[in-house]
This record gives sequence, structure tokens and C-alpha cells, in this order.
Amino acid sequence: MTAEHEAGGTFSLPDDGRCRVVIEQVTPEIDGGRFPAKRVIGQTVTVAADIFADGHDELAAELLFRHDTEESWRRLPMRPLGNDRWEATFTVERLGSWFFTVEGIVDHFATWVHDLEKSYLAGEELAVEWQIGATLVSEAIPRALAGDRPRLESLAGQLRQGDDEQGLAIAGSAELARLMACYRDWGLASRYEREPEILVERRPALFSTWYELFPRSARGDGDHGTFADCERLLPAIARMGFDVVYFPPIHPIGLTNRKGKNNSTIAEAEDPGSPWAIGAAVGGHTAVHRQLGTLDDFRHFVARARELGIEVALDIAFQCSPDHPYVRSNPEWFRWRPDGTVQYAENPPKKYQDVIPFDFETAAWQPLWDELLAVFRFWIAQGISLFRVDNPHTKPFAFWERTIRHLKREHPEAIFLSEAFTRPKVMYRLAKLGFSQSYTYFSWRNTRPELEEYLTELTRTDLREYFRPNFWPNTPDILPEFLQYGGRPAFAIRYLLAATLSASCGIYGPPYELFVNDAIPGREEYLDSEKYELKRWNWEAADTLRELIGRINRVRHDNPALQENGPIAFCRSDNDNVIGYLKMTDDRSNILLMVVSLDPFTPQQAEIGIPLDRLGVEEGHPFLVEGLLTGERHIWHRQRNQVRLDPATVPGRIFRLRPRLRREHDFDYFM
Amino acid sequence: MTAEHEAGGTFSLPDDGRCRVVIEQVTPEIDGGRFPAKRVIGQTVTVAADIFADGHDELAAELLFRHDTEESWRRLPMRPLGNDRWEATFTVERLGSWFFTVEGIVDHFATWVHDLEKSYLAGEELAVEWQIGATLVSEAIPRALAGDRPRLESLAGQLRQGDDEQGLAIAGSAELARLMACYRDWGLASRYEREPEILVERRPALFSTWYELFPRSARGDGDHGTFADCERLLPAIARMGFDVVYFPPIHPIGLTNRKGKNNSTIAEAEDPGSPWAIGAAVGGHTAVHRQLGTLDDFRHFVARARELGIEVALDIAFQCSPDHPYVRSNPEWFRWRPDGTVQYAENPPKKYQDVIPFDFETAAWQPLWDELLAVFRFWIAQGISLFRVDNPHTKPFAFWERTIRHLKREHPEAIFLSEAFTRPKVMYRLAKLGFSQSYTYFSWRNTRPELEEYLTELTRTDLREYFRPNFWPNTPDILPEFLQYGGRPAFAIRYLLAATLSASCGIYGPPYELFVNDAIPGREEYLDSEKYELKRWNWEAADTLRELIGRINRVRHDNPALQENGPIAFCRSDNDNVIGYLKMTDDRSNILLMVVSLDPFTPQQAEIGIPLDRLGVEEGHPFLVEGLLTGERHIWHRQRNQVRLDPATVPGRIFRLRPRLRREHDFDYFM
Repeated sequence: MTAEHEAGGTFSLPDDGRCRVVIEQVTPEIDGGRFPAKRVIGQTVTVAADIFADGHDELAAELLFRHDTEESWRRLPMRPLGNDRWEATFTVERLGSWFFTVEGIVDHFATWVHDLEKSYLAGEELAVEWQIGATLVSEAIPRALAGDRPRLESLAGQLRQGDDEQGLAIAGSAELARLMACYRDWGLASRYEREPEILVERRPALFSTWYELFPRSARGDGDHGTFADCERLLPAIARMGFDVVYFPPIHPIGLTNRKGKNNSTIAEAEDPGSPWAIGAAVGGHTAVHRQLGTLDDFRHFVARARELGIEVALDIAFQCSPDHPYVRSNPEWFRWRPDGTVQYAENPPKKYQDVIPFDFETAAWQPLWDELLAVFRFWIAQGISLFRVDNPHTKPFAFWERTIRHLKREHPEAIFLSEAFTRPKVMYRLAKLGFSQSYTYFSWRNTRPELEEYLTELTRTDLREYFRPNFWPNTPDILPEFLQYGGRPAFAIRYLLAATLSASCGIYGPPYELFVNDAIPGREEYLDSEKYELKRWNWEAADTLRELIGRINRVRHDNPALQENGPIAFCRSDNDNVIGYLKMTDDRSNILLMVVSLDPFTPQQAEIGIPLDRLGVEEGHPFLVEGLLTGERHIWHRQRNQVRLDPATVPGRIFRLRPRLRREHDFDYFM
Repeated sequence: MTAEHEAGGTFSLPDDGRCRVVIEQVTPEIDGGRFPAKRVIGQTVTVAADIFADGHDELAAELLFRHDTEESWRRLPMRPLGNDRWEATFTVERLGSWFFTVEGIVDHFATWVHDLEKSYLAGEELAVEWQIGATLVSEAIPRALAGDRPRLESLAGQLRQGDDEQGLAIAGSAELARLMACYRDWGLASRYEREPEILVERRPALFSTWYELFPRSARGDGDHGTFADCERLLPAIARMGFDVVYFPPIHPIGLTNRKGKNNSTIAEAEDPGSPWAIGAAVGGHTAVHRQLGTLDDFRHFVARARELGIEVALDIAFQCSPDHPYVRSNPEWFRWRPDGTVQYAENPPKKYQDVIPFDFETAAWQPLWDELLAVFRFWIAQGISLFRVDNPHTKPFAFWERTIRHLKREHPEAIFLSEAFTRPKVMYRLAKLGFSQSYTYFSWRNTRPELEEYLTELTRTDLREYFRPNFWPNTPDILPEFLQYGGRPAFAIRYLLAATLSASCGIYGPPYELFVNDAIPGREEYLDSEKYELKRWNWEAADTLRELIGRINRVRHDNPALQENGPIAFCRSDNDNVIGYLKMTDDRSNILLMVVSLDPFTPQQAEIGIPLDRLGVEEGHPFLVEGLLTGERHIWHRQRNQVRLDPATVPGRIFRLRPRLRREHDFDYFM
């Protein structure tokens, strides 16, 4: 038997065999403590555990928690929930890593009180009990603060007198219970064997509204846009209620194998190339594309955005054009074929002839990791702390874990969005190892059962502890069929769903508001994609979704229920074309009912069933219902209510329900 | 940041950043590896894991496993199941602890073959591919056995010639695939971070049929029975098909506070006392009650039982009569009250005035633990390796874990049955920490939904990996209501259920076969319980359940499906009074359908739906059905079949289904 296999202490004697309490099934804990659970600042962590001991004694348990920088544990009593489950809640009020654990002990005083009560009710002789109780109280005195000692001495003395009536009053008193709970002997406490971590991030890690924009099309007149042009667009973006502007890569673009329009492998002289073909003779991942402006211009743009309440997110795509300076300075970071050519990148079925990937199996992996870490550091130094990471699933997991952990320790404000459209376990691993947010399958979830199943998985399983969705109805890479065929109402429907199903959401900007839906035939890709050419978006167009998007985003801003990914309750609906769901804050101060048509063509009507019992409302009690998008008001009093939705106007509703919270003295309020 | 929080390797660089494979969600693994999963000798362990890497490369994975005594790992290839899940199966052919882990690597050769195929189909130029492939093959040569090297050299040479047709044939050949799989480079493999344990026990830990007997009533004439009297009963017990005889404690019984008939606190002179009030002046836990015989007599009984294929199980009850020698020799092991009296035992609502518990919070806990360990060792030295442990949930979990682990290491043949009728988490923890088998809630699960829900929990959740049920329809402590009211058919029903729902089962003997059902009014306890008096059981009675029990036990003996706790499939039944369920071996060579009436009063008929698709049988294909208890035979060919059950005869059926396993060449066999 090796020492390793004795590690659990199963063969050898424990340090103290008198520690009788067992603590197991602690939550939140991801993969046996391998990964942290996530929170944003100000959120709560409810820790639960199975806590029990042999026999029938009363127990006490405490939650121990601390911020990484704190030397000692803070402690909170845990409360029993029944079936040996206990819980306590703490609030994380600082960025960075928090740790917690749990302690449990046999509570001899509470056990004595409990047994005393039984003996008294059974009419048994209590004389000895008073001596036992007095001893328990006396033993607490050395642990007590000086100010409480005289009182404990007095109570112990009174118990020792052995008068049943007086003893019962003292033993059952709230005062003695409180004092004994304060000064419990934790000497024989059992402590949970692990210290699970909670990673606390800024609020936008959870709640953020993204607007993706190619700065090179920011002019609208066909000339190459600049950061200064982008500044002029900021007020309109702010009016739409977005709080993040995200740029595709802003670095020099390679010339070798540059892509032409529509992903052509032959570029015309005026073709600007794909921004993801990063690097040219003038610089790579820390340089700025000359036609966009200077690094100073970029910083000016960032500052101007900040004035309008908008953060700027950059795209980090760890790949190179063949012209990237790394290719010459560090050829050992790439995979060379026997004919002296370099292997270009693929993300099947896509091929990127203008891009070469890093070879993460290079013997020089360590300098490579350090260099890429330095890229993040460079942009953080320019005031950026939101990063959309391109295809993280094609770089090693260990690389991301180390990189993000390092950056988070230096810059706990940094936030990382994972752009991994791949198999579920890969996406979830990236979330576990540190990505703050993740792209999702939302773009391909259109029907009621698809949406219900997916949101149930995201909000009602362990995923909720570490995988924060960011719902995008479109991206420069994805123009889903539903948007291709459904016209303007389809764009309204999909943004309404994204913005109310997930705390974070985003759109690939101008073409979304303008409901551009020209696709490459048979594909879910934009025709004449902005990835390969400058576009002339009409920022002055009258018929756009800007006003509706602005209304939806203001509702998001005003309603905390839309700023978290709490469990979504789906409602019964008698029409498969209409989906209904409830989101609410834990304290039920903000209860929203979304009803959205999934049909972009035809008006739909549905009877939506509201689980009134979950809201603490009795059937028949009227309550106020406000339509937050439409301004309408209703008094509802039934579980089932008719909603009619017309794609020609607003294809969905966000209702705020304002039930009277049931209290004894006012349950007849409306009667 | 402390070293402790860096333990996961999340901040610092890994040893080798080129190990790209991730391994997670490994099963079976109990509580993050804290406890072993269980098997009996000869069973298989199917290990599964999520295994994936960044990118789109092909992977390979191997299962590593070894017996505790083996220095090096044995290895088996794992196969992909889809959705990044892989598995492999090994057989445990020795008692004791086994360990396993998982390794995964990127398989560059398989990736090359895969990509080659795509390039070929896309009509791309392959010249460089042949050089890459040849290099991959050449690199395998130093890893190959000498005998395989020439062939690898030859294949590499042929690839290097660059002929597309020849190259494609070699690259796609089974021969090269096999050779390259044999000589993979595992240098950059990732290994799962834990080595989960499998605890392998003797077969009776899983499959055993228990008969509980108070030896003191073994004569039947009112005189105190002896081990010699018990020997005379063995043939009848063997004929009933039991393979375990379990005795309540056989130690000297205390006189102080001895219990009288029906748990009276006043004993008459002739009252024998409760066998669980262990210890008198003449000895304690390692002594034998004088009236039963000597230690030699006991060993003689054990030997005689073994001749008949019966093992003897002893009751280990760690508690003392006030007259136990420990009370004088080690008063520090008990809890003394301020008046000099000792605290007696309780197991609410029961009180045991004749029993005092050990104080496991004694400062002398270590000598106490060692002494109790020695009690087990003593009886193991007498040839006993089956122990029924009384109320383990009133002794510390850490005590049991250490005690059982120690004993298992010295005597891997030892088996422990936990008699903990308490809250579920407590029962399951005892199973996790080492008890081989456990009493259950079966005694109180009577209706179809109750049975279906409970068996689903036991056989279709993680519990299956560590909690082995032992179903008892009665015990000396429990005469359930159903038996009190249902008469002989109730006893038949409950044994039939116990014996077919759980691989291990048992009865508290003579009163069960004789369907004794006199209870204390309003309680589930025997009137005139054998716990407090000698009984005169009629071993010659004609009207008993012995013959039926024998038939049921022979069916258990002959049918492997009843010897495991594989997932039970419950059948549709149109009558709530009739329950139907399927058990089968993994290879489907033994498929049993049980149909049992839950009504002891009235004949019942039901249409039972058999999930033919699970059996690989098409509706309409006839198959043979044998009634194993009744000898009847049917040809069934539908999903739904009528079964009629009469409590006056046999209130249930065990059907063996013999469908033709579907093979392509014989699916028309019956047509």
C-alpha cells in the first residue's frame, strides 16, 4: 500500500477520532474542486452541504469563507434544511478569488437541551440533568468574551441549584442558547477536506450587451473607415442601449494569400483582406492597421466610448498571416512541411489559406505561451479589459487556463468571451477553465422545444455555476436560415429572444438593424461578407430596428430579472408558435413574463399559463400587468391569459407582473 | 497565493504544455475519488471518460489498471462512443483493491490518415503528404519490437517513393494502422489526475441468501438450545437454499437490568435476557454464552455448516451490558454522569436499559478503536468472515472506515452487512466507507409505485456502484403491517419480491416460514419476541413456506440475472396490484420476467407489457416462456400478455424468456 493510497486517511488513524461529523456533497464545487464556480461582484454564494454525524446528537455547522487576500476565515452559521442538508449564503464584494469551506460539530449543549425536553415530557427525574447542564455552561466560560463571563457563571450557578422550574426556564431561554452558540467548542470540529474557489468578476462578465462593428466600414461612403469615424457612430450605438462595442482584429492585414470578396482566394488590388489574417511587415498582434489610425487614435476612441458608458472589446485571434513578423522572428512556432511550406489553418469545413496557425506542439511552447500572454498584457495596458477570443478551441486548454489565470491575477477586471462554436464538452471545458462568457448554440435554436430544452440545460444544471451564455442572433460568420427567410420580423423576434433569454447578448451591428439577409445560396453565410470587403451601411436609414432594439435594451437596463441567468420557468402555451417564460429576481421584486411569437409571417394568438403558485399568487387574485415594450396595462387574475402578437408591429411582449406579495394582513387587498 | 491554491497547476506552467488532451468526468468514481467503487470477483469494470483535445486531431486513449499488489499498469485501448466519451472494460479477478486511470494522446498518424483522405477526395496534390507520412512511420521504428522494424522501414520507404496509388493503399491498410497503434508515442500523453479505486470482494458480498436464527430456540422443546442443536437444523436450512446462517450475538448476557418478556424492564429468574445485552462477569465480545456451548462447539458448527455450503455470519454489536468486563477494566470508554451512573443506550424512540454504549468521544478513543478491531480479528481467527454489524450508524463513520479498511487489507475475504435503519445519507455513507451490504427500506415498500421508485434509485443511480442492498421482509425487530394482516400469501409475496428484486436477501427464520404474525398492537414488532425469551418453533410443521422458499432460492441459484443488481426494467401493468419487472444478464443469455401480485387476499389478473425492443425481439416473433416456479410453458409473441395470480397457490411467477437473439441469418426462424 503506497502512501498515495493512504492519502484519504482510510487505513491509518485520523488525527483525532473524536471528530464525528461528516461533510459531503458540498456545492458549488465544479469537478471535485478542480475548477472555480463563478460570480460577479455583489452576487451571493449559497453554499450547501450534507452534514451529519453518527447517532442522534444535535449538530452545528459554519461556513468559512475568505477573499484570496485575507489571512483568516470569516464565519457564518449554516442552517439545516432537512434531510441532513445545510446551507448558508455569503456575498462576494471584491474581485478575484474567494475560497470557502465548511465545519461541523456535535453541539453538546443543544443535544442536552433537546434530551432534557424529552425527559421532562416523559416525566423523568431531572436532578442529574442540572449538574450536566451546569457543567456544559461552565465549560463555555473560558471561551467567552470577558463581558459575557459573569452572566454565564450566574446561569451555570442557577442550573446547579437543581430547581426544575428554574432550570427548565434557563435551559430553554433564548439568552442561553445565544451565548452557548457564540462560545461553542470547535475543538472537535470536522472540516471539509477541500476549499472550493469562487472566481468573482466584474458585472459585465454576466450582464453585457454587445455591438459588433467593422471599423473599416464606419464611414458609409466606401472609403476606409477610421477610429475617428467610429467615434461619430458612438452616440447612435449608445442610444440603442449597447454597453460594449466589439471590433474584429484591428491589426495590419497580410498580403500573402490575401482573400478577395466572398472568400475568394484571389484578391484584387483594392481588396482590404480579412482582418483575421493578422500581421504584415509593419507589425502583428500589438500593432494597429494603418488605415484605421494610430494607437493614440484607438485610445482616444476608447476614452470617448467610456464617456458614453460603452466599453470597447477587442478580438484576440492567435493566428498569423504569412507576413506576420513572428514567421520570420520565430519560425519554430509554426509547423513546416517537408517541402518548406507552412501548414495553413483549417476549421473544417472552412479553410483559411490566408492564415497560418501556431504549432502548440513546438518544443518552444513556453516562449510562445509567454509571448501570447504579453499580447493580452499589451492591450490591457491600452485600457482594454474585454476580450472576445477567436476559436479558443483550436489552442490547448492548458494554455488558456494558465493565460487567463495569470491575467486574472494581475488584472481581475479582465473579461474573456469564448468564441468556440464546437462540441458541447469542449465549450464547457473552456468555460470551466476561465472564460467569463461563451458563444452558444442559440443561433440554431429556433423552435419552442429547442429553446426550452437548451435554456433548461443552461439555467437549471451545474452549467449555471460556470458557463455564462452570450446569445448572438447573428455574427459575421453566421446568418441563420431563420433570418434569411423571415425578414424584419425575424430580426425583431431573434433579438427579443436573445435579450431576454440570456443576461449577455450581442449583434453584429449595422446589417442586423438593417435586417440584411442576403446569404450565399444554401449556406448560413453572408453574401458579400464584410469579412472580405468594405460595406456602405446606411446609418441614416429610416426603416431600421434601432428604435425597437433601444426599447428592448432599456428594459434590460431597468429590470434586474434580465441581468442574471436565474432558472427560467417556461409557461404552458396552447400554440407552438408562441413561447412564454418567466424570469424573476430571487426576492421576487422584479418578475417578468416574456411572450414571443416564433412566427415571422402570421399573427399568432396563444393562451399562456402562468405558474401563479411560484409567484405566491392565488388564482383569482387580480394583479397588475404592464407591457414594458408597448406601454399597455392589464389586470389579470387567472393562470391562463390570451396574448396576441403581430409580426407587423412588435412580435413579442415583456410583461412586468406586479402581484401583491402575499402577506397575512393584506391578502384581501383586491377583493 | 498559497502553494495550496496553485496545486491545480492553474497559474504556473505545466510540466509540458504540449500535452493537449483533457480527461474528465471519469466513471466509476465516487465523490471525486474519496471512496472506492465496488465489485465482486469476476465482475467487470467499465471505465468511461470524456476525452478530447483542442482542434480537430484524432485521439487515442488507454485505460490503465492494476491490482494493488502489482507494480506496473496493465493497459487496454479505449474506444470512442461519440460525443467525446470513451470507454474500456476490464475484469477484476483478484480480491482487494484495484486502481485505474486513463491516458489520452493526440494520434498524429491517425490524424494524417484522416486528413489525407480528405485531401485525396478534394483532389489536392499529395506529394508532400507522402513525405509527412513516411516520417511518422520512421519515427515509430525505434519504439517498435525488433521483429516489426523491418516491415515499418519497408512501409516508410514505400511511402517516401511518393506514388499516390501505392501510398493510399499503405496509408489505409489495416496492417499499418495496427503497427502504428502498437507503437504510438505516449510521450505527450495526458494522464487523468486521479487513480480511482475499485474494491473487490467475494461473491457473497453481492449475492447471498441469509437465514437468521436464534440458536437458543434451536431445540423446540423449551429448553435452551445449543450449537449442537443448531447443527441438526442445518440440513433443513440447506434444503431451503440458504447459504448464510446468521446468529444474533452469542456472547454472555448481562444480569443487571436484564430485560424480561416483551421488553419488560423487570426480568423473571428464568428469563434469558436479550442477546444484545452483551457481556457478563465470565466474558464479553470474544466469549461464548455458556448455555450455547463452547468456542469449540461453535467452530464445530461452523465447520458442519461449511460442509453443507453454508457460511455462518455473526452479529457484531459494539455495546455492553453493565456487567461487561470492559466496564470495570476500561471505565474511561463509557460516559459517566455526575451522580456516578452511566448513560444507557437509546435509539429513539427505543430505550435499552440493559445496554450501555461506548463513549466514542473518550480521550482514550484510540485504545477503544484498537480493542474493537481486535474483536473482529478474534472472530475472523475462528473462521468467520461474514459480519452483520448492529447499528453502525451510532458509532463514528471514521471508526468504521478505519476498522473495515484495516480488516479488508488483512482479510480481503471479510464481508460486512450494515444494519443501519436510518436516514438515507447516513446509510449511503456507511456503504461508501466500506460496508459490503446494507439493510434497506424494503420492509416498508409495499405498493407498486413505492417499489418501482426505490428500486430505480438503487439500481439506476450512482448508488449501484457502492450500495449493495440486502432485502429482508422481516427481522426480529420488524414485523411489517403487510405481514401482520396478509397471512401466508403475504409472506410468500414478500419473500418472492425480496429474492428477485435484490441479489442479497434474508429472512428471520422460523417465524417467517411459519408465517407468525402476532404483533404488539399498533406496532410493527413481534408479540412475545424471541429477543427476550426462548421460543418453541415447530420444525416439523406441515403447513410452512419452506418448500416455496426452497423453490425460489433454487431459481436464484440457477439464474445469474438474479445474482446481480443490474438495472431493473419495470413493465407496464394495467393492474396496480400486479408488479412486473425484467432482470437480465449483460449478454442477455439469462432474461427473467417477474410478475408478482401485491394483494394477499384476492386473485388478480394483469396485462403485463414487455419491452421487447430491449430484448432485441420484434413484436410478432414468438418466443418460449418458462415458468420457473410453476413449470408452466407458453409461447408468447406480443408485447402484452395476460398473467393471472392466485394468493391461494403461488402469488407470483418467475418467467424465463428465451427469445432468439436477433442475428441476420436467422431472423425468420419462426416465420
